[in-house]
Amino acid sequence: MNFLRNTWYAALWDRDVPADRPVGRVIAGERIAFWRKRDGTVVAIADSCPHRRAPLSLGAIEGDGLMCRYHGLAFAENGRCIANPYGPLLDGLNVAHFPVALRDGMIWAWTGEPERADPALIPDVLAFTRGIADTACIWGYIHARAGHKLFEDNILDPGHGEFLHPVLGSAGMTKHKRLVEETGNGGLKLTILQPAGDMPDFFRPGLPDMEGLAETWIESIWNPNGAMVIRVGATPAGRPREEGADSWTAHIFTPETETTTHYLYASGRSFIPDDAAFNEAVREVLRVAFTEEDLPMIEGQQAVLGDQDLMETTPQLFSVDRASVMARRMFDRMLEEEAQERLLSAA
Amino acid sequence: MNFLRNTWYAALWDRDVPADRPVGRVIAGERIAFWRKRDGTVVAIADSCPHRRAPLSLGAIEGDGLMCRYHGLAFAENGRCIANPYGPLLDGLNVAHFPVALRDGMIWAWTGEPERADPALIPDVLAFTRGIADTACIWGYIHARAGHKLFEDNILDPGHGEFLHPVLGSAGMTKHKRLVEETGNGGLKLTILQPAGDMPDFFRPGLPDMEGLAETWIESIWNPNGAMVIRVGATPAGRPREEGADSWTAHIFTPETETTTHYLYASGRSFIPDDAAFNEAVREVLRVAFTEEDLPMIEGQQAVLGDQDLMETTPQLFSVDRASVMARRMFDRMLEEEAQERLLSAA
Amino acid sequence: MNFLRNTWYAALWDRDVPADRPVGRVIAGERIAFWRKRDGTVVAIADSCPHRRAPLSLGAIEGDGLMCRYHGLAFAENGRCIANPYGPLLDGLNVAHFPVALRDGMIWAWTGEPERADPALIPDVLAFTRGIADTACIWGYIHARAGHKLFEDNILDPGHGEFLHPVLGSAGMTKHKRLVEETGNGGLKLTILQPAGDMPDFFRPGLPDMEGLAETWIESIWNPNGAMVIRVGATPAGRPREEGADSWTAHIFTPETETTTHYLYASGRSFIPDDAAFNEAVREVLRVAFTEEDLPMIEGQQAVLGDQDLMETTPQLFSVDRASVMARRMFDRMLEEEAQERLLSAA
Repeated sequence: MNFLRNTWYAALWDRDVPADRPVGRVIAGERIAFWRKRDGTVVAIADSCPHRRAPLSLGAIEGDGLMCRYHGLAFAENGRCIANPYGPLLDGLNVAHFPVALRDGMIWAWTGEPERADPALIPDVLAFTRGIADTACIWGYIHARAGHKLFEDNILDPGHGEFLHPVLGSAGMTKHKRLVEETGNGGLKLTILQPAGDMPDFFRPGLPDMEGLAETWIESIWNPNGAMVIRVGATPAGRPREEGADSWTAHIFTPETETTTHYLYASGRSFIPDDAAFNEAVREVLRVAFTEEDLPMIEGQQAVLGDQDLMETTPQLFSVDRASVMARRMFDRMLEEEAQERLLSAA
Repeated sequence: MNFLRNTWYAALWDRDVPADRPVGRVIAGERIAFWRKRDGTVVAIADSCPHRRAPLSLGAIEGDGLMCRYHGLAFAENGRCIANPYGPLLDGLNVAHFPVALRDGMIWAWTGEPERADPALIPDVLAFTRGIADTACIWGYIHARAGHKLFEDNILDPGHGEFLHPVLGSAGMTKHKRLVEETGNGGLKLTILQPAGDMPDFFRPGLPDMEGLAETWIESIWNPNGAMVIRVGATPAGRPREEGADSWTAHIFTPETETTTHYLYASGRSFIPDDAAFNEAVREVLRVAFTEEDLPMIEGQQAVLGDQDLMETTPQLFSVDRASVMARRMFDRMLEEEAQERLLSAA
Repeated sequence: MNFLRNTWYAALWDRDVPADRPVGRVIAGERIAFWRKRDGTVVAIADSCPHRRAPLSLGAIEGDGLMCRYHGLAFAENGRCIANPYGPLLDGLNVAHFPVALRDGMIWAWTGEPERADPALIPDVLAFTRGIADTACIWGYIHARAGHKLFEDNILDPGHGEFLHPVLGSAGMTKHKRLVEETGNGGLKLTILQPAGDMPDFFRPGLPDMEGLAETWIESIWNPNGAMVIRVGATPAGRPREEGADSWTAHIFTPETETTTHYLYASGRSFIPDDAAFNEAVREVLRVAFTEEDLPMIEGQQAVLGDQDLMETTPQLFSVDRASVMARRMFDRMLEEEAQERLLSAA
């Protein structure tokens, strides 16, 4: 399976991990059991008991460990077997563990070599949620029947909004100046600068007294683990961004299998943070955009593609696809590097 | 996949194509998007945008063309790209188109080389519906989980009525004289002539004053594209057919995949054409016969067969199977001819 | 497929075979049609008409035979074609038949060479139901999405009760003396002897006047066709078993496919046989234990394993797994013997 291994994947929202029982998720083809320790920390190990392959995610939390509910073997967060009702704690009973980090309300899991799991490598796509009011932010999850690359293409794609999301008011974006640059930590940044024009309705409550023209800008960040964020802002024409209104939407696409994806999203804004009704309106607009507009189209692509990758079908690509093509190339290069590394370490 | 290419397939009833949005169908393994032009004509192209493989059947009708709702590329009925928001109209953006013909309320699509799509080749199995009153005809559609050949066998099979459809009153048909002949345009005709006997109840309202014996006859037409029609009539013994009562049932089996079929049917009669109650009774009898009697049996055959063709399982065939065996051989011969043609044109 | 052929499989409860129509079941990969003759006897043949592969389980019972409802061919219980509306009764029309035996309310079917089908080989796992009151016994059926071996492991496993079934009060069983021995007819017997202790609540109504300590014992019988029975009893310490209270639970795991199983069970007791309320309580406890505790765990194992056999995944086994490992080895040896036999008879 073509998944990056040495990377942090967004597994699930911290709020979706109960206190009293484990949760199983398949991430990049790996079955992983997550659970919460007594201090609240979430940890993760392989979701397969070494004894007889029972799913540990059907197990019970015992102290800080996870006990298999089939035969009572228990495991620590580092994968070591810490209880065996039937004999000694042999090394063969240890299971893979997955380093976990909680960052910005998200449980991130590292699927590669544990000693390389540096939380500093987690992309900062949810930074905007730090300290944000509940009435200025929404969080969501969609299980999607399409591969992560098709979703990442979609977010790096300035063109589709005009046709698929008229509700988002993103008409004409392909005409504006676009800039694609590498972020320096393996990702990409796509910037779209709109010339001065009418203030978009969405931002008007953020700058109620503004008169004259507004400048709008969009920055989309892609990371090879599928974690993405779009920042959209508007400011009075000629004024610095700090004087404007901001919004962010994180779109995080964690591969489950080659053709299914965990779609985790969050969206927040800098203005009228206490307006719960506005927040609910945002929630509904995004629900429609993501689940009624994007989802059928992208699942439709996957249905057309079957088991093929888009790039195997000689798609006719344009300059508007530049960012997504660059991202796919960077991803393929990283996959290739990991394959080379494995080859070398096996030799 | 073993499908005929240079043939007209019944795609869907004209009444099932809306005016305001396209419809996608898989026909003989091809994904096809159908839509209605402003003049009402239905046209069809490949259901896969060359840009990034979005289904065009999720698109929007724009003028006479079909616009991909993902990125705004639009296509004419001949498959040519007529709008591209991102660049010139390069030839690589054109998609396959499928010649379409409306005949007798049915949308027929040609899956082979477009220049060979002669509407005169469409089998005339729905001729009986021309000008027929709505109270003398019914139309239907069933999506079936069995291959088209099993359904065609079923219609060419004079034997099963007695056992599977006692409701249709077709007992004893295997005892009668049967004649199988080629139709001259690649099809087959099976004629069953019943000796003079009681008038079947079904036809009695058509010949209310008749006394004495009736002659009943059945003609089943098979065409290699799966379009079939059964004509059943009764006439006073010794009198010409024109003095009798007639009925027709078209059974059209359009392959979707090797093991699934679009079953399109229609049934009409020559007598008491204004009797809506009689028409509803016919509708119900056929619904029972097709969906409660034929369908489970034929889907059951497919379940027993799995991915095998019936002929791979050394079936024990009888003279009663002669018509269906002949049809299968003609079909295989045509498949072989098409394969040879492709080989020659590739050389 | 890795199924034993020359063995009796439990097909379905006699009470689940209607009088007026056949029933189809897939057993060890074979499609089999069962029906009841006029004298009530259940018989079985291949569920595929040799004419055109219609399922005979959709057919009709005619006298003592089974008639294909597609074309009227009929078959006797020995698989011979006894009616053919289209020609002579050629040998090619005969189908495989499956010897059937009714024993203790269960319809057993033999999938191997019919001449070797000796009913004396049927394992006696349901003997406890002979003459039992309806208020002292329950019967059940579960269709399970996991292979039969995982279920057999489960019943031969003294360890899981403590963790998966606290409701059954089987804590601490792995500490007791265990004895595994061959039964002499290809099966295994696992005996667990508990030292004298408190009388288990379950048996208390059977020995209401008992004071002092009780001895509890468990005997689990495995047979290579998946038919198993657990006998659990308690007796006043130092007294013979005959003075105690007994219960039996038959767990019969008939393979459907490699990864799906027909789970047929029955449970009876020797004490308070007329207590219908007690019986209903037993029914509910077992329903919870089998469908809410065992089933998700074992289907979970299969999900982790995918198409692999447990033994291919280098499970870490303990002495507590001794009985199930022995059973798997005996099963593999029998499979191998059957493969050798087929090779020899083919040579």
